[in-house]
Amino acid sequence: MKKYTDLQDIDNIEALVNEAIQLKKNPYQFLDLGKNKTLVMLFFNASLRTRLSTEKAARNLGMQVIVMNVNAAWELEFEEGTIMNLTASEHVKEAAQVISQYADCIAIRAFASLTDKEKDLQEMVLSSFQKYASVPIVNMESATAHPLQALADAITLKEFSGKKKPKVVLSWAPHPKALPHAVANSFVQMMQLLEVDLCISHPKGYELSDAVVKNTTVIYDQEEALRDADFVYVKNWSSFQSYGQVLSQDPTWMMTQEKLGTAKFMHCLPVRRNVVVEDAVLDGPNSLVIAQANNRTYAAQIVLKNLLENQ
Amino acid sequence: MKKYTDLQDIDNIEALVNEAIQLKKNPYQFLDLGKNKTLVMLFFNASLRTRLSTEKAARNLGMQVIVMNVNAAWELEFEEGTIMNLTASEHVKEAAQVISQYADCIAIRAFASLTDKEKDLQEMVLSSFQKYASVPIVNMESATAHPLQALADAITLKEFSGKKKPKVVLSWAPHPKALPHAVANSFVQMMQLLEVDLCISHPKGYELSDAVVKNTTVIYDQEEALRDADFVYVKNWSSFQSYGQVLSQDPTWMMTQEKLGTAKFMHCLPVRRNVVVEDAVLDGPNSLVIAQANNRTYAAQIVLKNLLENQ
Amino acid sequence: MKKYTDLQDIDNIEALVNEAIQLKKNPYQFLDLGKNKTLVMLFFNASLRTRLSTEKAARNLGMQVIVMNVNAAWELEFEEGTIMNLTASEHVKEAAQVISQYADCIAIRAFASLTDKEKDLQEMVLSSFQKYASVPIVNMESATAHPLQALADAITLKEFSGKKKPKVVLSWAPHPKALPHAVANSFVQMMQLLEVDLCISHPKGYELSDAVVKNTTVIYDQEEALRDADFVYVKNWSSFQSYGQVLSQDPTWMMTQEKLGTAKFMHCLPVRRNVVVEDAVLDGPNSLVIAQANNRTYAAQIVLKNLLENQ
Repeated sequence: MKKYTDLQDIDNIEALVNEAIQLKKNPYQFLDLGKNKTLVMLFFNASLRTRLSTEKAARNLGMQVIVMNVNAAWELEFEEGTIMNLTASEHVKEAAQVISQYADCIAIRAFASLTDKEKDLQEMVLSSFQKYASVPIVNMESATAHPLQALADAITLKEFSGKKKPKVVLSWAPHPKALPHAVANSFVQMMQLLEVDLCISHPKGYELSDAVVKNTTVIYDQEEALRDADFVYVKNWSSFQSYGQVLSQDPTWMMTQEKLGTAKFMHCLPVRRNVVVEDAVLDGPNSLVIAQANNRTYAAQIVLKNLLENQ
Repeated sequence: MKKYTDLQDIDNIEALVNEAIQLKKNPYQFLDLGKNKTLVMLFFNASLRTRLSTEKAARNLGMQVIVMNVNAAWELEFEEGTIMNLTASEHVKEAAQVISQYADCIAIRAFASLTDKEKDLQEMVLSSFQKYASVPIVNMESATAHPLQALADAITLKEFSGKKKPKVVLSWAPHPKALPHAVANSFVQMMQLLEVDLCISHPKGYELSDAVVKNTTVIYDQEEALRDADFVYVKNWSSFQSYGQVLSQDPTWMMTQEKLGTAKFMHCLPVRRNVVVEDAVLDGPNSLVIAQANNRTYAAQIVLKNLLENQ
Repeated sequence: MKKYTDLQDIDNIEALVNEAIQLKKNPYQFLDLGKNKTLVMLFFNASLRTRLSTEKAARNLGMQVIVMNVNAAWELEFEEGTIMNLTASEHVKEAAQVISQYADCIAIRAFASLTDKEKDLQEMVLSSFQKYASVPIVNMESATAHPLQALADAITLKEFSGKKKPKVVLSWAPHPKALPHAVANSFVQMMQLLEVDLCISHPKGYELSDAVVKNTTVIYDQEEALRDADFVYVKNWSSFQSYGQVLSQDPTWMMTQEKLGTAKFMHCLPVRRNVVVEDAVLDGPNSLVIAQANNRTYAAQIVLKNLLENQ
């Protein structure tokens, strides 16, 4: 692994998941690997789980960690050839080259704008850093992908799955705010790499990008989609076609214990209780959300370990 | 010690203070204790001394430290059963469980609102984290208590006291802003645990909670209260009865060198010069405020040491 | 070295630069020097390079690093004898003494106001901390000086200079905002310590302080100044006489490849492309800006090493 910006950076997902599960049993066995190595984490957006789990993962490997919360005081220019006489005081060309000299790995969080579809699809921030940096880039959730979350999801699925080919349903849920597609995209792409029977369910108008969905089954009737599910991953996203719009907040799409039945419940967190999913599910025995969050550490750690080993 | 949210978590205050004074002589003797252990510090309010001293204490024990300044970007829900369709994006149930997986100890600062007395007395933030977390919670100043400050005060008192039972006066001081009761509460409660002759002095209307004061002497006449004092702890707080109100800014309550006489002067800092106390006191030989601030490190360190040893 | 607040703290610049270049070859050879030592970094202004390079430098020496971004929530009082009943909640007297107990070195960034010339020249923040702190102070850019940048510049010059006495030109450049004089001041003062042929070029009205310029040549005609230059350091600053004013944004002062010729290009970064300097220079082979930024680490590290060795 030379970078971890999307799931295509994974050579062998089975092996990676197994390696992560082994690592989890003894997280401190590679403390020497990160000696005198520095992870710089750049947050263009706020973070709880990603911040804590990735920092912990790096420290579990003996790395130094420097966290930068990027804000209005440090505005970057991303376009080529601009006359920089407005608000941006530094070009990403310099920023990426400079930080590369202080870091052995740069992890970046930069959400979708949800207003400029083309820019979001270009992954302006992430791809610019990747273009100019001389050290590996890790995606801590970009405009279109959240591959660390998807890896944690794969680890969790492996830990809790008894079947050879479980049925996995990604079910859209209502939410008061317009949310990005990154988690849903990466979850779908990850499931496409695994031996699972995947289907996606959402109201009409909430179709994810064709480039992501490919030939995955989409069922607009949630009840039909959930039938015989082993794992139900619930997540809100805004419309992709009517880009960034909230087309529906239909509460009948909220996940309930009755709908879930005996399936395992997954969500990336944070989750709005009694809007996305009812209390009974989250507080019940079939919720995997806390285990998923725990696996964020080992997903990040196995990625960083791979990057360190390939430097 | 299984947690340190209030002074009732202390088994034996004498022993704890003595242990802290020993630790201070060689702060790095337990560097292995915190190996591969992580302290997550959550600041719902800003901090200087608490941030620096607690972080230093943890590092003195070899712990990793992750600091999160919680702000508007991460609003937590604390009520049960809410339909979370407003601003809070995460419930403390998930937050506390999740952070517990990344941390071996969670330290929390969450001040009083001074507007909602009932909520403040319930210690909504601290008690919710304590309810749902699976690792020890440390109080870095909550709505009603500041037990790390009180422990630093006890250490300082021990270091500077020549008497068997010194006279200690907690004297209210004027301040332009409405301040919480946490420091005063914990100081009173700590003194009640020690062999001291304690009295509290403040203008009428500034009575602290009965649950804190118990049978401690309250003297409304500052001059009378200060007579023969060995230690004078000066602190402003807002009214408890007229909750959060500034009833008086009477400058005659400011501590002066003349009033102090030969007594030692204590204050938790930050302190407003020439409002709470005159320059002559702070710059004079009887001020213990810098020593007190130094003892914040050893107070935090002895608490963290106890928590680590009992895990 | 007992502190590093300005270039006068350097005993022997030749030796220091050579030591830094040696250190760069094996940055981790003094990991024991900083064991159980803490650097507290106080940022009164935002920072990228200085934050990352100084933190990395400290960690390269095995130090603990605690970063405090000082904001409106912690307003300091600097004047003596004030009645502190306004917004400042803590006096620098207490702050500096207290932080000195948690730190083995305090690094401070506090920019010029550019509105109050007298206060800026007094270096209120830096000098106050220096007055009351009991540990060494490092200047991470103050109102009038940026000695860590100047040291990185000296290291870079040494690395890239083939001549015994190269010609170095400091050339003013246009900029949409009013910028401080700190970088220009320290660069001039550093060059005055070295074996170089220095001249300064800027439009009339942009004269730097006489106390800085001394007998250094000033040439108002940029073309004449640049003739036969070996190194061209480009930097914007606001007027010193008409304090903090932007008198000119004359684009003909922008550095171009044509003007630069075969000279090496230097800039402290961040730099506004096509305002201060055209793309062709920054993207060309004669730009040293990335190397300069890299040397920030070793400048900071050699300073911290000296301070630790002299404690």
